[in-house]
Amino acid sequence: MEEVDHLAHERSKAQFDGDAMKVVWAGSKHALDVADRMARLVASDPVFRKDNRPMLARKELFKNTLRKAAHAWKRINELHLTEEEASMLRVFVDEPSYVDLHWGMFVPAIKGQGTDEQQKKWLPLAYKMQIIGCYAQTELGHGSNVQGLETTATFDPKTDEFIIHSPTLTSSKWWPGGLGKVSTHAVVYARLITEGKDYGVHGFIVQLRSLDDHSPLPGITIGDIGTKFGNGAYNTMDNGVLQFDHVCIPRNQMLMRVSQVTREGKYIVSDVPRQLVYGTMVYVRQTIVSDASKALSRAVCIAVRYSAVRRQFGSQDGGPETQVIDYKTQQSRLFPLLASAYAFRFVGEWLKWLYADVTQRLQANDFSTLPEAHACTAGLKSLTTSATADGIEECRKLCGGHGYLCSSGLPELFAVYVPACTYEGDNVVLLLQVARFLMKTVSQLGSGKQPVGTTAYMGRAQHLMQYKCDVCGAEDWLKPSVILEAFEARAVRLAVNCAQNISKAPSPEEGFSELSADLVEAAVAHCQLIVVSKFIEKVQQDIPGRGVKEQLQILCNIYALSVLHKHLGDFLVTGCITPRQGSLANDQLRSLYSQIRPNAVALVDAFNYTDHYLGSVLGCYDGNVYPKLEEEAWKDPLNDSVVPDGYHEYVRPVLKQKFRVSRL
Amino acid sequence: MEEVDHLAHERSKAQFDGDAMKVVWAGSKHALDVADRMARLVASDPVFRKDNRPMLARKELFKNTLRKAAHAWKRINELHLTEEEASMLRVFVDEPSYVDLHWGMFVPAIKGQGTDEQQKKWLPLAYKMQIIGCYAQTELGHGSNVQGLETTATFDPKTDEFIIHSPTLTSSKWWPGGLGKVSTHAVVYARLITEGKDYGVHGFIVQLRSLDDHSPLPGITIGDIGTKFGNGAYNTMDNGVLQFDHVCIPRNQMLMRVSQVTREGKYIVSDVPRQLVYGTMVYVRQTIVSDASKALSRAVCIAVRYSAVRRQFGSQDGGPETQVIDYKTQQSRLFPLLASAYAFRFVGEWLKWLYADVTQRLQANDFSTLPEAHACTAGLKSLTTSATADGIEECRKLCGGHGYLCSSGLPELFAVYVPACTYEGDNVVLLLQVARFLMKTVSQLGSGKQPVGTTAYMGRAQHLMQYKCDVCGAEDWLKPSVILEAFEARAVRLAVNCAQNISKAPSPEEGFSELSADLVEAAVAHCQLIVVSKFIEKVQQDIPGRGVKEQLQILCNIYALSVLHKHLGDFLVTGCITPRQGSLANDQLRSLYSQIRPNAVALVDAFNYTDHYLGSVLGCYDGNVYPKLEEEAWKDPLNDSVVPDGYHEYVRPVLKQKFRVSRL
Repeated sequence: MEEVDHLAHERSKAQFDGDAMKVVWAGSKHALDVADRMARLVASDPVFRKDNRPMLARKELFKNTLRKAAHAWKRINELHLTEEEASMLRVFVDEPSYVDLHWGMFVPAIKGQGTDEQQKKWLPLAYKMQIIGCYAQTELGHGSNVQGLETTATFDPKTDEFIIHSPTLTSSKWWPGGLGKVSTHAVVYARLITEGKDYGVHGFIVQLRSLDDHSPLPGITIGDIGTKFGNGAYNTMDNGVLQFDHVCIPRNQMLMRVSQVTREGKYIVSDVPRQLVYGTMVYVRQTIVSDASKALSRAVCIAVRYSAVRRQFGSQDGGPETQVIDYKTQQSRLFPLLASAYAFRFVGEWLKWLYADVTQRLQANDFSTLPEAHACTAGLKSLTTSATADGIEECRKLCGGHGYLCSSGLPELFAVYVPACTYEGDNVVLLLQVARFLMKTVSQLGSGKQPVGTTAYMGRAQHLMQYKCDVCGAEDWLKPSVILEAFEARAVRLAVNCAQNISKAPSPEEGFSELSADLVEAAVAHCQLIVVSKFIEKVQQDIPGRGVKEQLQILCNIYALSVLHKHLGDFLVTGCITPRQGSLANDQLRSLYSQIRPNAVALVDAFNYTDHYLGSVLGCYDGNVYPKLEEEAWKDPLNDSVVPDGYHEYVRPVLKQKFRVSRL
Repeated sequence: MEEVDHLAHERSKAQFDGDAMKVVWAGSKHALDVADRMARLVASDPVFRKDNRPMLARKELFKNTLRKAAHAWKRINELHLTEEEASMLRVFVDEPSYVDLHWGMFVPAIKGQGTDEQQKKWLPLAYKMQIIGCYAQTELGHGSNVQGLETTATFDPKTDEFIIHSPTLTSSKWWPGGLGKVSTHAVVYARLITEGKDYGVHGFIVQLRSLDDHSPLPGITIGDIGTKFGNGAYNTMDNGVLQFDHVCIPRNQMLMRVSQVTREGKYIVSDVPRQLVYGTMVYVRQTIVSDASKALSRAVCIAVRYSAVRRQFGSQDGGPETQVIDYKTQQSRLFPLLASAYAFRFVGEWLKWLYADVTQRLQANDFSTLPEAHACTAGLKSLTTSATADGIEECRKLCGGHGYLCSSGLPELFAVYVPACTYEGDNVVLLLQVARFLMKTVSQLGSGKQPVGTTAYMGRAQHLMQYKCDVCGAEDWLKPSVILEAFEARAVRLAVNCAQNISKAPSPEEGFSELSADLVEAAVAHCQLIVVSKFIEKVQQDIPGRGVKEQLQILCNIYALSVLHKHLGDFLVTGCITPRQGSLANDQLRSLYSQIRPNAVALVDAFNYTDHYLGSVLGCYDGNVYPKLEEEAWKDPLNDSVVPDGYHEYVRPVLKQKFRVSRL
């Protein structure tokens, strides 16, 4: 294939230093270097090929994933990669597998909930992958409500063992990744029962399979839960089902950092604060927000490049048609997503800082900021994953018909991403947690207790309830303070309205339940404010590189004003802005689209994604889309023969009016 | 498995006559009977099994579809089914295949564009399926813009033939269903060139494959374009790629009803009005709207039933947890979709009437209502397909984690549905056509030309620009006239605002292009008004059956007020309602949710879908979800063996610290 950069003209139009923007996106020069090296390592290794995934049947697909996981582990060891490099390599392998749960959930669970002794015993085995672990929490009948789990762990003082048991069908462990076919061990969550009393859900290390021949241990029934959404997507993962029939484990395999059962069967709570668990949640959710910006940016990269390549309509006298990216309808859907990718990147970066801050405070026994940090990460997890899932699908639609082909990469990206809206807390359930925190904050206003962190603005509730936006012209909407105050006023007013309506109900609980749809909207408003304010903070920092800061400023304004436009009802119903000001914001938005347009391709180049990682013919770097689409098409198994399998049995008889159709 | 109706209690709560509602949904007693018989016929025939689709590799999947298509054709003939019954049977087979294009596009194209003589020659062959046809319009580089097609059909007076040719890579025919592996013939769209002049795009009947051995004819390169979104979904269809290398066809295979080429090569336009083509578009889009209600209602049926089965949280002292359907957050997402399914059903029914009306007028050479009918169907196609695609995915999320399993049926339903947003006119492009029509209508106000049909309300623009909504209490929002006027005022004001802003631009075309995102919103407002007004008209008819009308009234109000809530910004920014009135609408909505709640399960039962057609463990009629989920899981090929294929090569070496990973 000819090597021509079909997007060279687009790239030449960029008004900023692309290399400097790459550093901003990656977070640092070092992070960019590591990512760049690991991405190339993966892209150049044929074992990590992934374009054939949609054509493989489940078993083949799964075996291939096992192969990649083993190969990655081999390369990590051969090249003596650092932990940072290894985890980056896994990112670019870009295929869900048991490895994710081993490193992402099993190891952290032991670290967070195991005693020092337990860590000393289990972690070295896990680090060397001499055991492979998963995280067995959710059950067939129990997802969001962890306290409703049914699996029991009953202490038997006679044998000094716990008896792990699945008392009902709905108590089957269901969904844990890596469980179905691979894991040798699991952290299993079960109701701890000792001395006849149910102490609620606790974690236990349970061996599932023989280390000799991989067969399930006695009393353990285990399997895969079946095909999931998408062609490849999460079908590379062995999400599993697990039933226990009175399986005995030694007492010391209960994770005992926070509470213990003694040899005699006494339940004892240790002096280690329970809040530590929330610290882990802050960590996990922070990584989810960071993954959101990664997934959204991939989709946006594909859609932006292809929108610059693709032409439709608008041809005058036989000249070339108009680039799709030049249509305002395309811009008004695409550029807010480009801006969102950057916005989520920066709020994710800030969450890393927040996690470090919380951890430091926890170590100093300072729990004061934990509830706010917890609400904040819950809300941002919900906001960014929902917007990303919707955004990927929108990018697919923005690619027209070809976005429906697997070779566009977008169907796979969507199907593999959407579970993020459900796992680690259903997005609506999380927003209700945020709302509950907001209602508590509102109720404490005036009590002298000052709201902290991301809720600090609520301390200015009185001012914000009175506030009138003073925008007179479209350019006023470019001022960060104007945007910030409008978002603060909207968030405060929605929250206060909810609180007032709740207070009219027979009881707070009834009011909360009756108004929960409104509360979700108030929580969203609060979370969007956080994203906007962190983007503004980012842009107010020193940012080196020609034109880089200017582009980020434009993106920041696009993000804020497109959210405002989408939720105009909120801003108007609370009287934060006038209809006229709403229209001015929309005028400004159109002007911002024109400003970002010449930089769009360079702004997605700044993600520095290889063609391998993108996995999209439509999004390929050189824009040489059509020959590649055609090349991919011919690879389909259906094209192995000119006359399709089944012609003689099922097509010819129809054409020749013979209906002797055999029943297989 | 025990035969218990887990939803019996839900069904006993219904406040209306379920059988009467089934007739309303089906359209008539006769339609219900036919649908019921055909659905059972398909469900009881093992050849039509579809639960294994997600597990089949592409070739197997495709062969299986060929088998089903042949079997369906056999049964249709054996049982001497009527045309109505046959098409209903194909609906319940529920698997995209070449048959859809043969009956849905190839035959109608010949009927609509062929001369009487051509119809006499080709239709009998097609009716008996002695030839199988597809519709080859879109090209690799050309989708929405039909006028931009590149394939040429050059008349050669020497041989009295057209030479069909693909001059470029981007001119490859791309996407046509049934083309890739099955069709023997196609209606091919190509630029007609005669006497050195390009007369634009015309249709030609081209034979593609030998009727003897199915091999492509000389000069024809043909194949499948590869895997598409979803596990089964459209992968049962052979969407194809096709290149012509100077393929000759007789002159009389040009479809010559509207224009002809003579033996000498003269291009002649016949006296048959070109507008007939638009009549066909009205027909096709009407069927798409009707399919939208079908697809959305399936998703809603699954989500409603499972939401009544599933319990999470809210357990007091160990009692059962709360049914998910009782949460307001669930209701506020689910019930508007239930209402939309009914709304789209009724607007689709009305479109059938509209098509009949337009056809009658065309036959009488009356083209006066055609532009309005065309804009109306374009807009409704866009509105209903977008809402349905989003709605199916929302239903999937409403089922929590289990909605991600293929056995829930929802991933498949989504993946197979989304192309409807793109085919037969990209949804945004269609809305811009509607907007163009609206702008024209606005510009003619006061010219004496009265707007007709669904735009008649614009004749009252002066009144609607002045109008003030007089809602004082939540119950005022139940009055049809109040709802209708608010929607009319919003639609008119958005349209007039756009028109005014366009008039400020240097030229109307520049203005239209610059404001196209706003124009899309105005078009959406107009289309939503149509759906609301047709629902209101339906509910104002005589509807027999205890409580049936009352339920439809509630659904109508839920549809209207949830749209109002979602687009509150529009209503407020145009001053159609006050913030206070917006809040009252929201209060009314919550109360409507409580009213519909006890009837929700019975309202989805009224769709009368068999478990086979639903194809969902979560949505099964008896609600016995959990044993069925487990049963489905064990069927996965990964569960064929306890120790997975690949363990010895790729898992054991990791566990045993041996990195000799073979490179296949």
